[in-house]
Amino acid sequence: MIKFAFPKFISMFETDIIIIGAGPTGLFAVFEAGLLKLRCHLIDALPQPGGQLTELYPKKPIFDIPGFPSVDAGVLVDNLMEQIKQFEPQFSLAQKAVSYEKTEEGDFIVTTSRGVKVKGKAIAIAGGLGSFDPRKPELENIDKFEEKGVEYFVREPEMFRNKKIVIAGGGDSALDWSVFLADVASSVTLIHRRNEFRGALDSVEKVTELKHQGKINLITPAEVTGLIGDETLSAIEIEKAGEKSIIETDYLIPLFGLTPKLGPLSDWGLEIEKNAIKVNNALDYQTNVEGIYAIGDINTYPGKLKLILCGFHEATLMVQSVYNRLNPGKKFVLKYTTVSGVDGFDGTRKEAEKAVVKSID
Amino acid sequence: MIKFAFPKFISMFETDIIIIGAGPTGLFAVFEAGLLKLRCHLIDALPQPGGQLTELYPKKPIFDIPGFPSVDAGVLVDNLMEQIKQFEPQFSLAQKAVSYEKTEEGDFIVTTSRGVKVKGKAIAIAGGLGSFDPRKPELENIDKFEEKGVEYFVREPEMFRNKKIVIAGGGDSALDWSVFLADVASSVTLIHRRNEFRGALDSVEKVTELKHQGKINLITPAEVTGLIGDETLSAIEIEKAGEKSIIETDYLIPLFGLTPKLGPLSDWGLEIEKNAIKVNNALDYQTNVEGIYAIGDINTYPGKLKLILCGFHEATLMVQSVYNRLNPGKKFVLKYTTVSGVDGFDGTRKEAEKAVVKSID
Ligand SMILES: Cc1cc2nc3c(=O)[nH]c(=O)nc-3n(C[C@H](O)[C@H](O)[C@H](O)COP(=O)(O)OP(=O)(O)OC[C@H]3O[C@@H](n4cnc5c(N)ncnc54)[C@H](O)[C@@H]3O)c2cc1C
Ligand SMILES: Cc1cc2nc3c(=O)[nH]c(=O)nc-3n(C[C@H](O)[C@H](O)[C@H](O)COP(=O)(O)OP(=O)(O)OC[C@H]3O[C@@H](n4cnc5c(N)ncnc54)[C@H](O)[C@@H]3O)c2cc1C
Repeated sequence: MIKFAFPKFISMFETDIIIIGAGPTGLFAVFEAGLLKLRCHLIDALPQPGGQLTELYPKKPIFDIPGFPSVDAGVLVDNLMEQIKQFEPQFSLAQKAVSYEKTEEGDFIVTTSRGVKVKGKAIAIAGGLGSFDPRKPELENIDKFEEKGVEYFVREPEMFRNKKIVIAGGGDSALDWSVFLADVASSVTLIHRRNEFRGALDSVEKVTELKHQGKINLITPAEVTGLIGDETLSAIEIEKAGEKSIIETDYLIPLFGLTPKLGPLSDWGLEIEKNAIKVNNALDYQTNVEGIYAIGDINTYPGKLKLILCGFHEATLMVQSVYNRLNPGKKFVLKYTTVSGVDGFDGTRKEAEKAVVKSID
Repeated sequence: MIKFAFPKFISMFETDIIIIGAGPTGLFAVFEAGLLKLRCHLIDALPQPGGQLTELYPKKPIFDIPGFPSVDAGVLVDNLMEQIKQFEPQFSLAQKAVSYEKTEEGDFIVTTSRGVKVKGKAIAIAGGLGSFDPRKPELENIDKFEEKGVEYFVREPEMFRNKKIVIAGGGDSALDWSVFLADVASSVTLIHRRNEFRGALDSVEKVTELKHQGKINLITPAEVTGLIGDETLSAIEIEKAGEKSIIETDYLIPLFGLTPKLGPLSDWGLEIEKNAIKVNNALDYQTNVEGIYAIGDINTYPGKLKLILCGFHEATLMVQSVYNRLNPGKKFVLKYTTVSGVDGFDGTRKEAEKAVVKSID
């Protein structure tokens, strides 16, 4: 698990490219931008980078990443994070990019759902299928308790230390977070409306073990039917076999899956087709708004394939185009990483071992 | 080192996609074709797959392959070979694709410099900078001895077993093959016109060691000035410090580097620009000749970058277009390898572990 700070006091970040979406496409864009000395700031609705890979199938193997006969999605994301780290990307996670404006100087400012502002010279939308919104349980007063006891993501496991928590759900996330938080929280209750869970065998087995050790309290088949508390959540009402009961808890974490929504981006004046953003694939994956690009799953063009490897290529050409816009007239010379090495913004340098010129005696 | 058979008796191979060039782009195309149940036959002028990576910088790290913070070029090629093996690609190596014709049925037949013919439904030119032609020493009767004692590549190390060989050259190939063949040949002589060699420190050190053990006979600075023999080579004349002498040998292997040449492909009626083949990047990387595509370093279009990762994307869209041409009107549904697995032509199957649906007791 990767941890990020969520700075509360910086009101305006500055960068070169504002990347919306920290899936594989957005992450790799940081690398290509770094090679051209451009900095990036990534915004993602999820609390961690990796997009669909981390959120939907982190432990599953992918077989069509070039050069990897097989790679687990989570490992690919870790590798990408490692590959880009010397370019010091900034992350604003757990918040949506909501709106953008253009300054008189031609810069862009993107504002997020948490009020963070990021100023940059170009926007790359790498938003995949859209921002992942949690499926919420239908409980009438749930809005009132959001971030006051009801959490749809485990953003920061430490906030649950020595707290009583209830997790609701029957899939991998519910299983895996129950296991993880069993060591952190003072009590973990797992509630699911069926008896059967659906997940990796491994995860099911761990929950079974922890249940027998008394570390996870399992209630099935049951549903959460009410939320109780004044300012913050203090208990939930559940229904099991027609009978209601009350469980005291500090937190309820409903993990019912996520649905991607194009959301605010659909009002940005961008040409939309089949729920995706039209781009100029004959050149640089730019949208109809100059300076705004769309790369990866979120874009569409004739022949488009929603594959990870295509996002990598699109990110690379996008960055190139941004570079050309910022350096008009400057002749670009492609440098091979093998030949020129990689100079990080953090002062590190990666390079191939030099050949020696040497006589043999 | 990977070994391949060079079948002498098959006069016409059949396949779906004839791929010219077995560099990273051509290799990955095999994978994407396989996912769509299309078979490939690769033709390459070099005796081994990998293109520039294997021939020019096998031991050097590449830093911009997505998901690899660093990967040695040779390792990337090995990985690609592993990734495609279940799709049983055919290889015709150590021969150039020279000409093509179209049959009445609309198939293509490509003929190689060794007279091999390959019939297929589409051609994908993944020829990089062109076919790698050896730089030949300027010796007037050298043509006479080619494949009769003079070899520009080490195609098949076993042919040198217990033979006397002379290697000429001062770079990595000359160093590395001297080391490798020291265990195979009855004697290895390494001749270079300077005292200094240029290569990986490691290689220089190994040659030094083998020289001291008497396993490599080093002659510097010296040049090969003549070839002697009736039907086949029996000796060479060399000049060192103004003095000529004769060395008996079964083979001379001049390793003076390779120059890529667009070569025969430039007469195929394809639109050429800046020594590269123009393609339609707005759709499928097809050339001006229907059914002939150009992918990877060999093609050009607005914004083209000669990068390995771009070749991967181009290969993927090319294969898609071939599939659509062969299956007109059929609706294509993208399948994720993670979800659908990979079914090899060799009967193997790769797949993600299935989720279980299980109650916890
Ligand atoms: C089960 C499954 C298996 C798959 N298997 C394969 C496979 O084998 N091979 C393959 O190539 N592909 C596979 N895919 C597809 C692959 O996951 C996608 O192609 C890839 O994730 C696209 O990457 P991306 O970076 O473009 O978008 P995503 O990974 O979708 O990331 C986009 C990110 O943008 C964020 N975002 C969107 N809008 C906003 C906004 N307004 N504000 C803030 N954040 C926003 C989202 O929260 C998300 O995190 C699979 C997909 C699934 C679901
Ligand atoms: C020193 C060096 C360092 C590099 N570093 C990087 C890097 O860090 N990152 C990066 O992305 N790229 C790098 N590159 C570029 C990279 O190697 C190329 O982009 C890549 O090799 C292109 O792959 P390809 O498959 O298109 O062509 P190639 O690798 O060139 O392979 C083409 C093959 O086609 C064959 N061929 C051509 N014509 C014919 C014919 N008529 N008949 C038969 N065979 C034919 C050739 O013999 C060759 O083997 C580097 C290149 C060099 C030289």
